[in-house]
Amino acid sequence: MSIPGQLNPSPRILLGPGPSDAHPRVLSVMSTPLMGHLDPQFLTMMNEVQDMLRQAFITKNHLTFPISATGMAGMETCMVNLLEPGDKIIVCVKGFFGVRMFEIAQRTGAEVIRLDAPWGSVFDVNQLRDVLTKVRPKVLAIVHAETSTGAWQPLEEVGKLCHEFDTLLLTDAVTSLGCIPVKLDEWGVDAAFSCTQKGLSCPPGLSPVTFSPRAVEAITSRKTKVQSWYLDMGMVQKYWESDRHYHHTAPITMIYAIREGLRLLLEEGLEARWARHQLHHKAIKAGLAALGLDYTADPKHQLPQLNAVKIPAGVDDLTVRKKLLNDFGIEIGGGLGDFKGKVWRIGIMGHNSRANNVLLVLGALEQCLTSVGCKIAPGAGVAAANAAYAG
Amino acid sequence: MSIPGQLNPSPRILLGPGPSDAHPRVLSVMSTPLMGHLDPQFLTMMNEVQDMLRQAFITKNHLTFPISATGMAGMETCMVNLLEPGDKIIVCVKGFFGVRMFEIAQRTGAEVIRLDAPWGSVFDVNQLRDVLTKVRPKVLAIVHAETSTGAWQPLEEVGKLCHEFDTLLLTDAVTSLGCIPVKLDEWGVDAAFSCTQKGLSCPPGLSPVTFSPRAVEAITSRKTKVQSWYLDMGMVQKYWESDRHYHHTAPITMIYAIREGLRLLLEEGLEARWARHQLHHKAIKAGLAALGLDYTADPKHQLPQLNAVKIPAGVDDLTVRKKLLNDFGIEIGGGLGDFKGKVWRIGIMGHNSRANNVLLVLGALEQCLTSVGCKIAPGAGVAAANAAYAG
Repeated sequence: MSIPGQLNPSPRILLGPGPSDAHPRVLSVMSTPLMGHLDPQFLTMMNEVQDMLRQAFITKNHLTFPISATGMAGMETCMVNLLEPGDKIIVCVKGFFGVRMFEIAQRTGAEVIRLDAPWGSVFDVNQLRDVLTKVRPKVLAIVHAETSTGAWQPLEEVGKLCHEFDTLLLTDAVTSLGCIPVKLDEWGVDAAFSCTQKGLSCPPGLSPVTFSPRAVEAITSRKTKVQSWYLDMGMVQKYWESDRHYHHTAPITMIYAIREGLRLLLEEGLEARWARHQLHHKAIKAGLAALGLDYTADPKHQLPQLNAVKIPAGVDDLTVRKKLLNDFGIEIGGGLGDFKGKVWRIGIMGHNSRANNVLLVLGALEQCLTSVGCKIAPGAGVAAANAAYAG
Repeated sequence: MSIPGQLNPSPRILLGPGPSDAHPRVLSVMSTPLMGHLDPQFLTMMNEVQDMLRQAFITKNHLTFPISATGMAGMETCMVNLLEPGDKIIVCVKGFFGVRMFEIAQRTGAEVIRLDAPWGSVFDVNQLRDVLTKVRPKVLAIVHAETSTGAWQPLEEVGKLCHEFDTLLLTDAVTSLGCIPVKLDEWGVDAAFSCTQKGLSCPPGLSPVTFSPRAVEAITSRKTKVQSWYLDMGMVQKYWESDRHYHHTAPITMIYAIREGLRLLLEEGLEARWARHQLHHKAIKAGLAALGLDYTADPKHQLPQLNAVKIPAGVDDLTVRKKLLNDFGIEIGGGLGDFKGKVWRIGIMGHNSRANNVLLVLGALEQCLTSVGCKIAPGAGVAAANAAYAG
């Protein structure tokens, strides 16, 4: 029999696609002793979390709460509740997480139409209008912030367009919530899911979801039961919203965490939060350019919080990432799917969107890239970032 | 816009059916900064958790790891991976969680045969032999520790019996792991799921699952895809066991927690852990009897960690539970389903299986019951418990 030793990890700075570092206040509340999932104190806390989530999503949607599992379960929750056999859905694919939505939708028995665009690009409304006209689906699914490419899908016009065709708009907001504007009601988004470990600066473990009244109507008028019992919104809702009917034991500590993460977001203010992400993006972008690293996403649609750059020719992905991790404790992300070994993903999100991290990762990258033979003017990355901050 | 104040709950002592209080060492590790879900340090930790889970389940099952969601998701994981349309399953129902298994199994498209026994009782092997002979199902599902009734289902003979009929034995070990013997390999259990918030003294949020080689073969020879993408063992396994293929972002902090909870279990030793639960059960049982409270479960099959007692005639459930919560910060559980308003469930599990809690809850219950008119000899509960400890 063997028992491993005390938890004693080397410290990390998480500048990948997520998990991003949790805010110290979030870590602190996580050692709070437990309470019961039906304790009146906990029920109050659930209401607070719902209210703050609505503020974060900028929505009045009544049906808004975190699913008791990670972001991918939120994606599945939206799919299995909105779709049943016989329904049609268009899934827009322009990166790894679009593919994910396609795969999960396929398990619902719905007819799934896949619309592809090059990785790193975004869809424009005319493309979407064409396919909506042809297919007239129940749901159109699209990723807001494509974590695999760093591309920022504009959604301002998409909801209105979908509603012309009586189509529900489902959006992956995993990497957008708490980093860039997410204006669900204004844009006419009908269902969205997110996570805790990125913009909200919490550990992974919950997936906030929200459904518009139109989406709720689609759910309540289903002919078949939702194929997942655990993710059945109608059942989970009875615990979160109405008679507090026991469904499963809520992950108490993660609710403490998201409550604190949402408090941090709202104390800062949404506009200030978005502006902070833009500021540090401007700096890291200037710095990465000075290091000779090009972005993968369309420059007009670059996410501030997720900077995906092409690995320079001749440079080995893992050599550099291992050196960053071992010498500096810095984690950045590798590429997913088609981008494996070709792309690095540098996340500057939530609590981690700070000048300290920008300067540090640029300095460390300079050292790592130089060590594998890249020619970089000494200090170029940091100098460019500081110039951007000054300008 | 409103932002709630700092997290500041009144302290609780959780003596219900779970969540039970987390051990202070578990709470402490939960404020450890995050690491990435593909960090070499984290991969090592995953291996450690798997190894310790196998020790806790007393199994050599390779396919053993925690699902990234709560216990009910573990139940669904077992059902959706083992069953596909056309399969037959017998679900043994003798309490609320048997009903749950029945409901979840029904969503798989399998033919579900429900075998009922009175709540509080357990099944004997002859009953099971009869139905296995008639049905010859792919799976037989049974709850080991029925949290709604406190009944302890013997499993020693059930695995062998199932294997005579080429049937897989699926067991709900949510309330048994870390409290009473769970000897999966010796008993021939093919699949089991548990939770973190009971015997393991962690917060809720993960569901350890384990599958025998026979169960794995059933999964790999499926004709259809698993209906849940998030709970698809074949996919999640690629992250936990083989090529570390990204499936979802593991709930890092909860993995820290279960690692610590398992360390605590193995440091104490399984036999010592089980004996401790028996010791404090003997004391609380004597005390509850002295307070005039009768158990709901068959006395020959009473769980030590979950003491379900009948609410005395004329006593209002909520009045007493509210007083316990408000005056003492003590949470005990109400009844579920058929037992709602009729039963209290007193959990003395994991870290909370201690003399302090036994004496405290007996003293507090005496005060609460007396306040609603029950006639109790002063100090009777504590006196009886202390006599049991002395004897």
